[in-house]
Amino acid sequence: MRKHSIISTTEAGSGHPSTCLSCAELISALFFYALRFDVQNPKDVLNDRFVLSKGHGVPVVWAAWAEAGAFPVSELLNLRKIDSPLEGHPTPRSAWADVATGSLGQGLSIGLGMAISARMDGQDSRVYVLTGDGELAEGSVWEAAMLASHRGMDNLIAILDINRYGQSEGTMYGADTTLYEERFRSFGWTTEIVDGHDVSAILAALDRARANRGTPYAIVADTRKGKGVSFMEDLDDWHGKPVPQGEMLEQALAEIGTDLELAEPLTVRPPDRKRAEVPAPAAMPAPDFPADAHLATRQAYGSALAELGRVHPEVVALDGDTKNSTYSQEFLKKFPERFVECFIAEQNMVGIAVGLGAVGKIPFASTFACFLTRAYDQIRMGGVSQANFKLCGSHCGVSIGSDGPSQMGLEDIAMMRAVHGSSVLYPSDAVSTHRLVGIAAETPGIVYIRTSRPKTGLVYNNDTEFHLGGSHVLRSSKADRATLVGAGVTLHEALQAFNILADQGILVRVIDLYSIKPIDEKTLQQAARETGLVVTVEDHYPEGGLGDAVLSAIANTPCHYHKIAVTGLPRSGPGRALMQMFGITADTIADTVESLL
Amino acid sequence: MRKHSIISTTEAGSGHPSTCLSCAELISALFFYALRFDVQNPKDVLNDRFVLSKGHGVPVVWAAWAEAGAFPVSELLNLRKIDSPLEGHPTPRSAWADVATGSLGQGLSIGLGMAISARMDGQDSRVYVLTGDGELAEGSVWEAAMLASHRGMDNLIAILDINRYGQSEGTMYGADTTLYEERFRSFGWTTEIVDGHDVSAILAALDRARANRGTPYAIVADTRKGKGVSFMEDLDDWHGKPVPQGEMLEQALAEIGTDLELAEPLTVRPPDRKRAEVPAPAAMPAPDFPADAHLATRQAYGSALAELGRVHPEVVALDGDTKNSTYSQEFLKKFPERFVECFIAEQNMVGIAVGLGAVGKIPFASTFACFLTRAYDQIRMGGVSQANFKLCGSHCGVSIGSDGPSQMGLEDIAMMRAVHGSSVLYPSDAVSTHRLVGIAAETPGIVYIRTSRPKTGLVYNNDTEFHLGGSHVLRSSKADRATLVGAGVTLHEALQAFNILADQGILVRVIDLYSIKPIDEKTLQQAARETGLVVTVEDHYPEGGLGDAVLSAIANTPCHYHKIAVTGLPRSGPGRALMQMFGITADTIADTVESLL
Repeated sequence: MRKHSIISTTEAGSGHPSTCLSCAELISALFFYALRFDVQNPKDVLNDRFVLSKGHGVPVVWAAWAEAGAFPVSELLNLRKIDSPLEGHPTPRSAWADVATGSLGQGLSIGLGMAISARMDGQDSRVYVLTGDGELAEGSVWEAAMLASHRGMDNLIAILDINRYGQSEGTMYGADTTLYEERFRSFGWTTEIVDGHDVSAILAALDRARANRGTPYAIVADTRKGKGVSFMEDLDDWHGKPVPQGEMLEQALAEIGTDLELAEPLTVRPPDRKRAEVPAPAAMPAPDFPADAHLATRQAYGSALAELGRVHPEVVALDGDTKNSTYSQEFLKKFPERFVECFIAEQNMVGIAVGLGAVGKIPFASTFACFLTRAYDQIRMGGVSQANFKLCGSHCGVSIGSDGPSQMGLEDIAMMRAVHGSSVLYPSDAVSTHRLVGIAAETPGIVYIRTSRPKTGLVYNNDTEFHLGGSHVLRSSKADRATLVGAGVTLHEALQAFNILADQGILVRVIDLYSIKPIDEKTLQQAARETGLVVTVEDHYPEGGLGDAVLSAIANTPCHYHKIAVTGLPRSGPGRALMQMFGITADTIADTVESLL
Repeated sequence: MRKHSIISTTEAGSGHPSTCLSCAELISALFFYALRFDVQNPKDVLNDRFVLSKGHGVPVVWAAWAEAGAFPVSELLNLRKIDSPLEGHPTPRSAWADVATGSLGQGLSIGLGMAISARMDGQDSRVYVLTGDGELAEGSVWEAAMLASHRGMDNLIAILDINRYGQSEGTMYGADTTLYEERFRSFGWTTEIVDGHDVSAILAALDRARANRGTPYAIVADTRKGKGVSFMEDLDDWHGKPVPQGEMLEQALAEIGTDLELAEPLTVRPPDRKRAEVPAPAAMPAPDFPADAHLATRQAYGSALAELGRVHPEVVALDGDTKNSTYSQEFLKKFPERFVECFIAEQNMVGIAVGLGAVGKIPFASTFACFLTRAYDQIRMGGVSQANFKLCGSHCGVSIGSDGPSQMGLEDIAMMRAVHGSSVLYPSDAVSTHRLVGIAAETPGIVYIRTSRPKTGLVYNNDTEFHLGGSHVLRSSKADRATLVGAGVTLHEALQAFNILADQGILVRVIDLYSIKPIDEKTLQQAARETGLVVTVEDHYPEGGLGDAVLSAIANTPCHYHKIAVTGLPRSGPGRALMQMFGITADTIADTVESLL
């Protein structure tokens, strides 16, 4: 393990050998003793899972997979090369990495998600997470630690590699393994301290961890960064630096010593259980709202999610103590065993969703749209993981009213559009919400659904169809002199503006842009061309939202463009009054169109 | 306190009276006994500070300020009204709220920032933070708890209102005050449990907290949500619900009882110390780089920050264990007493910056651009707080190379543009970096500086001037047939593309868009009009970045537009090879211009 780590990072000319050396025994013991894993079938859900939370230590993990037979050992020399899946931090470009890590402190949440999935499925597998010590400063670790013990997840085992050094200096606590142990214990874990370079001790600890019941288990490993190489061991300033070619490399390899004589070849034991057949999902039923239904899209989200849960056995719902506001409680009522209450800890909620998605679940996680900003790093990393999870952000925009700006999602579209591979959906009534929840479940990757607080009437019949990247033209004529594009509450305003303008003899086109990413370029371009003026209206800040998405779509279509968005800092007040104050209501839209014509 | 809370929320028709009732004694005891505060001069830096982390409990805090003489008690009836500064969650529209809260779990970091400022200034003031129990599930709380004890902040006192209920159900731990105490103790705090409805006990606890030395202090208060109103007390399902007008209101007020007969009027004691004069800042000196300087903008950031620190006594630098990568270590070397190492905890770092800014410091916080996503909620709330702090994100884009996508900032421009009141700056060489650091210090509010990893030569002379909202036209002629807009590494590519195209007889304009928000609309529109083709190039995902900012600026200028950005998921590889793979190098730019002409 050590030789591979040193050689591959030296060959790459970059990387983190010293952090590999601190966990070489831990990884060896874990892989070739504790882990139950079918190396040739890495995606088998019966496998134990391993998450490398300290992602920069990946060279030693690639080495372990190579020694386990996943790929030829010679591949290790391609570390960090542009055509190799052996990246500088784990990504699922390698089949042996379920998720991307490298933004520290996220692995325990992901592992918790995998452990929750295993328990939901009645599997007896375990999830191992290796963390560094520097990353234990990340609050997300403690969010995961809390929920894991609260749920009694004894299939989750954390191995803490306490090697004393961060990137730029020593950690806060150095070799104080007792402190780490006390903290995890106070967070409800069973813990023990082990010499992280004593293989027999590690094996015994792993046995105790596997035998433990009722709580998650933390093995606090006392280690040395750079262990085994004298010029690197327990010294600062070696973080992220490969050993130079030549004398130093020779010295390092000599000090590590000759290859071990193994009594038998290294193997990873496969799992020995069979999984119960999961029924295939059925199609999402059509919505069935009465024509006079009057409800918020957040309410329709709840009912749609419950419907989806009925036909799709792998759907799981998560919430961050807002389930009575996001209406995910409708799913909880029907499927309590598939609901994960994450309490007020959005980072952990999204991390769990990433973990659930990585092992085949279809997680829907909801909270206020604004609070998803709390988990933006986890969402971003979910993009790098090419993860499959769905997010619902409720209470978007100033239309929520008197709770004030801290509770208003006004940058969520910008945030979610910028995530690699994401889709962004924005329903305007109960029917579209229902349909878009179904589409989200079918669409691989990260799908964001933005819901609103105010109640509105229906725009659509129950049989209206929707599709990813689509839109609906709701008002259209050959005489249209402008196009209004809205979604959510502003679609209703646009429809009302149509009436105001029609009364004055001005016809306009109205488009429901329910799919903001991907976007229906064709319909938007046609409307721009035919009407010559496009006005977008959104309950969102002006940067990066619906307006910018439309502008990108029509950039090269000759037309006049005007963006209406929330340009000031909102405040408490009645939702309707705030919409008026920030100019996103029908009268302002109509006035704007008139003044531009 | 209780009556005001009930009456004002009933009058508003919304709000959180039950959470006010659990902390009425805590707030009373704190304000009218422990706090040293000049009510008529709320911004006086000698004042103790109070941060309401459980922002939804603000009605009882507005009540306390009113009773303390900050404003007439009758103002409380304007709670949540659109023209009142008494919002549903605290915002600095009221002079008695230093910062906005309402996204839970952020108050302790902000308070820690204020406590650090007081200590830097040698003041003997204290910072009190009132938290709920539900919000202790947020990891950011534990990040702050760690650093506060690590730094021995005995001027920071947390009061934990353990009222047992979150929004949608009971908290994880109910009334288990011992568990909270153990956790804070294991995180290095001195703690005690107190009956949160026993005023004498609270006063004694506050005395002990004020007398404590060497550690932060946590008062774990055992309370009842809805205390004092029988139909609300200790019951679920009253979160965020006002008492209805009529019989229930009458009953509630009757149960709370008649007004107290006070021996003397309620007063808040003012602070009694004088602050040492802070020297006025001098002007940032001009940069002084040799013409052949070859360095990364991240390096220039470090040297500029150190220069700024020399002339500006209120500048403070923060980092998240990346100071040897962001080069904020240059500031640390010169001014260790004004540097805050936050370790790997970006949420807490930004929260501290908000707190520092709220009491007059000018904080510059740096980490990799991608890791600022971890603190997006804190940054967003900083916008609501109208806070004054500066962020530097290094290692942007694919140009960082082989560390791979987890370490690449590719959505940071989108994220930062969407923050209310933010400025976004993006230097391309050492001179511009130096100038933009100076501009950031002078510009109120949130200013983001994006720096790059690769070393580059200088684009500018040392005497070149820069300004917020400006740009530089680096190549220009009357025969220009296209405009290239770049910043950072892509500006260098655009300049090289100019050469390639010039060799083929094609002249193009080249604009350095060093200020992405605000943006130089005039120069961009003129270029679009005069050249008829605008091509933007950015080391960022296509959504919400430099390209979208330019597109918004030229939306109504007739021209052709083309966006070059990172459209795929990056990977490990040499930085230069990745820039080529994702088409943001000079040859692709030149080819694109040729094909479009």
